[in-house]
Amino acid sequence: MDLRTIKDPSFIKHYSQAELAALAEDIRSFLIKKLSVTGGHLGPNLGVVELTLILHKMFDSPKDKIIWDVGHQSYVHKILTGRADQFETLRQYKGLSGFPKRNESEHDVWETGHSSTSLSAAMGMAISRDLRGTNEHVVAVIGDGALTGGMALEALNHIGDEKKNLIVVLNDNEMSIAPNVGALHNILGRMRTAGKYNKVKDDIEYLMKKIPAFGGKIASVAERVKDSLKYLLVSGMFFEELGFTYLGPVDGHNLDDLYENLGYAKKTKGPVLVHVLTRKGKGYFPAESDKVGTWHGLGPYKIESGEVVKQPAKAPGYSQVVSETLRKIARKDERVVVITPAMTIGSKLEKFGEEFPDRLFDVGIAEQHAVTMAAGLAIDKMKPVLSIYSTFLQRGYDQLVHDVCRQNLNVFFAIDRAGFVGADGETHHGVFDINFMRHVPNITILMAKDENELQHMVYTAAQHDGPIAVRYPRGNGIGVPMDGELKKIPIGEWEVLTEGSDVALLSFGPILQEVLQAAKDLKKTGIYARVINARSIKPLDESMLLKLGTEGLPIVTVEEAALQGGFGSAVLEFLSDHKFNAVIERMGVPDRFIEHGSVPELLEEVGLTKSDIVQNVKMIIQKQLRA
Amino acid sequence: MDLRTIKDPSFIKHYSQAELAALAEDIRSFLIKKLSVTGGHLGPNLGVVELTLILHKMFDSPKDKIIWDVGHQSYVHKILTGRADQFETLRQYKGLSGFPKRNESEHDVWETGHSSTSLSAAMGMAISRDLRGTNEHVVAVIGDGALTGGMALEALNHIGDEKKNLIVVLNDNEMSIAPNVGALHNILGRMRTAGKYNKVKDDIEYLMKKIPAFGGKIASVAERVKDSLKYLLVSGMFFEELGFTYLGPVDGHNLDDLYENLGYAKKTKGPVLVHVLTRKGKGYFPAESDKVGTWHGLGPYKIESGEVVKQPAKAPGYSQVVSETLRKIARKDERVVVITPAMTIGSKLEKFGEEFPDRLFDVGIAEQHAVTMAAGLAIDKMKPVLSIYSTFLQRGYDQLVHDVCRQNLNVFFAIDRAGFVGADGETHHGVFDINFMRHVPNITILMAKDENELQHMVYTAAQHDGPIAVRYPRGNGIGVPMDGELKKIPIGEWEVLTEGSDVALLSFGPILQEVLQAAKDLKKTGIYARVINARSIKPLDESMLLKLGTEGLPIVTVEEAALQGGFGSAVLEFLSDHKFNAVIERMGVPDRFIEHGSVPELLEEVGLTKSDIVQNVKMIIQKQLRA
Repeated sequence: MDLRTIKDPSFIKHYSQAELAALAEDIRSFLIKKLSVTGGHLGPNLGVVELTLILHKMFDSPKDKIIWDVGHQSYVHKILTGRADQFETLRQYKGLSGFPKRNESEHDVWETGHSSTSLSAAMGMAISRDLRGTNEHVVAVIGDGALTGGMALEALNHIGDEKKNLIVVLNDNEMSIAPNVGALHNILGRMRTAGKYNKVKDDIEYLMKKIPAFGGKIASVAERVKDSLKYLLVSGMFFEELGFTYLGPVDGHNLDDLYENLGYAKKTKGPVLVHVLTRKGKGYFPAESDKVGTWHGLGPYKIESGEVVKQPAKAPGYSQVVSETLRKIARKDERVVVITPAMTIGSKLEKFGEEFPDRLFDVGIAEQHAVTMAAGLAIDKMKPVLSIYSTFLQRGYDQLVHDVCRQNLNVFFAIDRAGFVGADGETHHGVFDINFMRHVPNITILMAKDENELQHMVYTAAQHDGPIAVRYPRGNGIGVPMDGELKKIPIGEWEVLTEGSDVALLSFGPILQEVLQAAKDLKKTGIYARVINARSIKPLDESMLLKLGTEGLPIVTVEEAALQGGFGSAVLEFLSDHKFNAVIERMGVPDRFIEHGSVPELLEEVGLTKSDIVQNVKMIIQKQLRA
Repeated sequence: MDLRTIKDPSFIKHYSQAELAALAEDIRSFLIKKLSVTGGHLGPNLGVVELTLILHKMFDSPKDKIIWDVGHQSYVHKILTGRADQFETLRQYKGLSGFPKRNESEHDVWETGHSSTSLSAAMGMAISRDLRGTNEHVVAVIGDGALTGGMALEALNHIGDEKKNLIVVLNDNEMSIAPNVGALHNILGRMRTAGKYNKVKDDIEYLMKKIPAFGGKIASVAERVKDSLKYLLVSGMFFEELGFTYLGPVDGHNLDDLYENLGYAKKTKGPVLVHVLTRKGKGYFPAESDKVGTWHGLGPYKIESGEVVKQPAKAPGYSQVVSETLRKIARKDERVVVITPAMTIGSKLEKFGEEFPDRLFDVGIAEQHAVTMAAGLAIDKMKPVLSIYSTFLQRGYDQLVHDVCRQNLNVFFAIDRAGFVGADGETHHGVFDINFMRHVPNITILMAKDENELQHMVYTAAQHDGPIAVRYPRGNGIGVPMDGELKKIPIGEWEVLTEGSDVALLSFGPILQEVLQAAKDLKKTGIYARVINARSIKPLDESMLLKLGTEGLPIVTVEEAALQGGFGSAVLEFLSDHKFNAVIERMGVPDRFIEHGSVPELLEEVGLTKSDIVQNVKMIIQKQLRA
């Protein structure tokens, strides 16, 4: 069928299983074709085609609430709720979001991006339903990876205890973002191979039959044994122990199995966990046979071959530079250990792990544990490097404050994806970390202007005494030559990139390139800007600031980060504390959430382009002339 | 014995069990006597006397690492490691800390305060031990309440999988800070009453014996059944499922049992969980029979009667005011629901719970879940109030950003313990929340000058559209009359408390009292200060700031919160953005962690007293005169 004719999911209520199967095929073809052009999370969505169909057949969305954990697996749901015609714009500026969005559809009842939030949200909705006295169903769909996040475990614990009607669909696929780690994964593995349990069940039954009827005594003993064995035998005793009714494992690509089990879940009182086994990439060979996670989320590809269309890289990626530099350092310093919360691939740590298999720890989606485990390593004289996306470090904020910085430990936070991240949008931009770290005592915060400086900064951080954060952006470097020898970058020391005495432009990270371009343009109009690489965000370069204050130069700070309390405010605080009356213009990300789009589009939207900088400088200079 | 003669715990290696028992009695008497004067966490420490003795007998601290989760149960450990003579100064300024502190003793290998960090720290130390190739033991002691924290569950998951040698002592007492909630608690309950499981075991064995020898077939079936039953029968199958060897339950007040089981744990390879049952307050009747948690942590008391020595309160406590106001509002607005992460008593929510048992949710130590569950309630049209200590909201920072503020939901954060908290010290001061929230889009942040304004602010927040935080301090109000009728406080509007045109003093919360006193003193010297109640921290009162900027008054901001990126910086940003050249002096908590002490002592230490304010104002005025 033409999927663009779908307005809402009600039509599938009357679909036969055969019609659903045909629709599943149409959806798969649609996704494979559309994403080959736009890119996106193909694997996860191909894995939930049947599951999504049955959920919408069984439940009445939006009255019944379907909550997608993480949300990158919501494309099928988007198609069924009338958004097929927008897939050309997927993850593009002003286009369809890659995650559920309430302003796109009433069927998107909960917005996501970060993982492990669905169970808590579902619990909130179940409580409000019961207080209101209505009877809608609340269904959370969560992956096996997301289930290892501490907040999901907190929620499981609460839900299992409160006994409200609530359905958790555990979407268990063997290939999540990264190979799953943790004991919970092992338990799921044992459940998957439920044959073992079924065998035990058979054995018990056989045994029972063979027992001669010794009378009431034995019979009742046997009965009690059978009861007590129940947990074990249903093969979901872990979840049963937590207070859930466990159903499964269910073949997530078998429409009949799904229909039967979700129907049973719908009728069951109290919390139910339906354990659904799916395969990421199902129905598209290159994605289905993916072992390393390429097809989790990716750019355009050739449909026939599955060949990924690569943009020729002008320079190494920043993540790659960090990872390679860490390898060099780790060869010489045995104390260096790297920790990642499920981002081995995202942060390009595979080779580190190959070379140092006992010194790379992927702890799963467990940011809190990751930060404090790093603190435990540091207190025991190791040099832990926590490689973590800026946006996910938000999950470990208390641990950064309470465990690392308060104890003033040598933890090196390698903060990946700092600044705008592009297509993943508002849930993933790394624009708050300076603001949530700058007031934390003992921490040092750095960001390099290019990939060459970044490698030196990694080298510097690995030798630093005390907590230190090195931020670096998503994407590739700017193509500068890489020094062969690693060297230390002095902390608290900035670098003058261009001389000038009409205005000082203070910036750091890749946005410095815009600033340098702006300085060139300004020069043409006779304005000479001193461009300063303010790579040490905390501590500031106080002597350079004192000099600037004394010179009385107007100052423009430019940061790809939230304005309130950020780097520009630090400059403002310092100059105010030293009673300089400098004119300071702070440019940065304004006080609102910024949606998805390419980085240049987003910089344009928030006014952080070369021409915005030029305009601001001219305005300041003109005001000064008038004054 | 005279406990003050103890220098280190080595002497007990050679103690007989009888000598240990006598020592346990001495320690109990010492704690009951000392804490009756200083106050402190009596209940938790009386509960771990025997456990601590056996831990120090069995393990070689500090080579072997004993890690106390939360840490308020470390007093016995402090006595055994040579600090008995410092108990007169417990939790007092420059005195003995109520938590483990590395600068107090080499036996304090890990500092705590917040809960649930011990397992991650232990894992870090176990990894570093194995990389180094040494063989010390790592032992984490964690309570049943702390185990529900997401990060502890993340760590259990990782530890169970990695299989390193690591001992977790689960200190399971029925009275933790609050009645424990959650499914995990139910599991522990089932383990506690292990009789049931033992009964099953007996039944099975009886059954096995009765089965006639049908030959190899049945025998091997029975054997397999026995194997498969193992998890169930050892009564610790939950932890066994997670990959731990489970030992217990052990009577935590029986020295022999403890010695035997911890000895077995020491010899066991891989992760071991020793389930120890203790009783808080053991050996002191008033504490032992405590049902509500009074004896968890408290001030001075009369030893004989157990009567708590109460300071006559001049005014209602701030937490009480919030709780009572919420009750009033909840009577009229059915959508109001209160959530607390294990702080029902601390935040005085008992009466709310009595009146609205289905609208108070104690989710346990689970801040992440608490915040996002509030978001789930709000998205479903309820009015959730999350009552949470400032320092513990750090645990829910990502959820505040990603789930609440990004979706712009009506969650009311009632932030208790904002500002210095006194005796609990550096891990508990609420001095970072303005700084970690101010840059988050959509949020409103308020703080009242007194208990009367606070009740109106609670009323205002409950009707506000969008996320809103009302901060309030620990302790009692200042004794102002309470209005009978609740009214709305205009958001973004400040209040001029005293007129004056020599200087403007901007402040909020209880520290405003110091500011008002300073203004009085200044008046005597002919300096007229305009004192402004800057109760709306975000948004600022922009029209008042524009007026101040235009008038050109020097401005002093005074906040009991971290200086970087705080309220003073917000004022600075606004005035700079509007190109005012105002002289601004920002007073607040400097960039370091502040230890324990009374609030007045701490204000003195950081320079936030009346006389500090007077001095700063005089300096500014003199400079202006010179200029």
